[in-house]
Amino acid sequence: MTAPDFIIDDYVAGVLAGDRGILSRAVTLIESQSPLHESKAQEVLQALLPHTGHAKRIGITGAPGAGKSTFIETFGCYLIEQGHSVAVLAIDPSSKLSGGSILGDKTRMENLSREARAFIRPSPAGDSIGGVARRTRETMLLCEAAGFDLVLVESVGVGQSEVALRSMVDFFLLLLLPGAGDELQGLKRGIIEMADDILVNKAEGENRPRAEQARLEQQAALSCLQPATPGWKTEAALCSARTGEGVPQVWQRMERFFRELEPKGVIAKRRQQQAVDWLADLIRAELQRRFDRHPRVQARYSQLRASLLRGEITAVSAARILLADFDGGPENVNYDHKN
Amino acid sequence: MTAPDFIIDDYVAGVLAGDRGILSRAVTLIESQSPLHESKAQEVLQALLPHTGHAKRIGITGAPGAGKSTFIETFGCYLIEQGHSVAVLAIDPSSKLSGGSILGDKTRMENLSREARAFIRPSPAGDSIGGVARRTRETMLLCEAAGFDLVLVESVGVGQSEVALRSMVDFFLLLLLPGAGDELQGLKRGIIEMADDILVNKAEGENRPRAEQARLEQQAALSCLQPATPGWKTEAALCSARTGEGVPQVWQRMERFFRELEPKGVIAKRRQQQAVDWLADLIRAELQRRFDRHPRVQARYSQLRASLLRGEITAVSAARILLADFDGGPENVNYDHKN
Repeated sequence: MTAPDFIIDDYVAGVLAGDRGILSRAVTLIESQSPLHESKAQEVLQALLPHTGHAKRIGITGAPGAGKSTFIETFGCYLIEQGHSVAVLAIDPSSKLSGGSILGDKTRMENLSREARAFIRPSPAGDSIGGVARRTRETMLLCEAAGFDLVLVESVGVGQSEVALRSMVDFFLLLLLPGAGDELQGLKRGIIEMADDILVNKAEGENRPRAEQARLEQQAALSCLQPATPGWKTEAALCSARTGEGVPQVWQRMERFFRELEPKGVIAKRRQQQAVDWLADLIRAELQRRFDRHPRVQARYSQLRASLLRGEITAVSAARILLADFDGGPENVNYDHKN
Repeated sequence: MTAPDFIIDDYVAGVLAGDRGILSRAVTLIESQSPLHESKAQEVLQALLPHTGHAKRIGITGAPGAGKSTFIETFGCYLIEQGHSVAVLAIDPSSKLSGGSILGDKTRMENLSREARAFIRPSPAGDSIGGVARRTRETMLLCEAAGFDLVLVESVGVGQSEVALRSMVDFFLLLLLPGAGDELQGLKRGIIEMADDILVNKAEGENRPRAEQARLEQQAALSCLQPATPGWKTEAALCSARTGEGVPQVWQRMERFFRELEPKGVIAKRRQQQAVDWLADLIRAELQRRFDRHPRVQARYSQLRASLLRGEITAVSAARILLADFDGGPENVNYDHKN
């Protein structure tokens, strides 16, 4: 999948023409961890940047077992029926370890993957949530430049992936299972407050009463929370990705979200804030990486952490010692700590 | 209030003897921003460290107008009646700007401030929430070494102060006003999920029905949330700090919290995690401070941010340029970015 023969203009022209093969290769370039490829990828993105930003960016997360893949399959096919073109991406920092991503098994989205106006790309392999999120963000830009008008980004619903997802999408949909309460245990604290809509999936057959109960409980909880998006009232609804029931209503809600909030500048403001936050995150991650990989810091950290845990040293003293190590020795710092 | 005549042993002996005057001076030393004082303060803390950790650490926050000061006055006096000694601290990063802290006006805690077994210290003046939080944490250690068995830390209930507060206490109490919903608007998102108990204050006279309604709404919301502390069920209760009604029950809940969770190691584990998190925060803040104050970074940041907001540059490209500036020029980084 590497493309040593492609120059930057090839990528740019191919992506803008909507060429699936070249789009795939451009994504592979973005996913590469080689410094040379990274530099090339940035030039491709820079050239495509004026052609990005036109898609609606939808994040979809949920509890394990909530049926995210089935929902995306049904929802994606519905959107294509309505005349849209749909890119489906994922943030799954675990995929490298587990050997397969949440979207890797395309057989789970058999119908959608056969659609000419769909593009499904599994989560990139990356060593950190930051790395994975960065590559997913940039892939989103490529898909926009390639002309997709809807980008769905799935996250696995655990750890930091939802926070990363919320920070790159306009609309954030949370999928739950019937039988509220318990299934939230596996989800990140505060996720309800990030949602623009909550959907209780699998609301079919004998599940229906429990699903309705879960919906009511979520609706009650929502009444005490601040809205995730200013001017938008998050609601809890039912759907069945298996039967398709409730799926058109999900899209109606999203359309209303954009129709009402875009003219007010809420979406543009959110995207600007996301860009600034992303810049800050990239810098913070790089500064931390340098610190963590410093040989003298690495040599001392475990011992200091153990002292800290035993209550033998304050955090401030431990930080001073480590920062002095990072600076190359106590002579470089402006205090005389006894260590 | 500076104490040039005091040597480290004077502070240590005085604090351990429970001498209020010396405790106050030691807090002033900790609050000092002079590098010489900082170094001295760390030595005092280091010597006192074996005598810390024995107090119960209680955080109290709430919506503006929820009656935090009145509650602490009533609650503190009740605790002293029960035979406890109580230190009252605050985290209020705004105090420097507003010219007075939330505890600065001691007349609001007239009875408590007259008690021999109470020590009330306003929020330190600091240039950042991080600085204020650090000094409050260290003051808490001093108060523990001075023999206080309860430390109450108040936060203003806005911005990042609750997160800082949650990261330094064992038990986190959230005060609300009667008439749920609306008053949450001023509070940080997710604060309900940080609370170990929720207290609807001012539940007296004609407020009573509205207070009970608010309590029920909070109780319903809590049923859908994860507990802030594993093994503890957060509950919503009523109280009136003015009449004292419900105040003994608040303390009963806290006693039960410690009685049930201390033997399971939950408190010790939380404190260890807090120490490690604090160390990470201190390092992160210092690395960020160095970056933000770098002259070349400062010179270029605004322009790059503006380009980013106009969609002319990716966040990754902007980060590369700034990091190259921080490193002293593009020749120091391992990629050839065109800028």
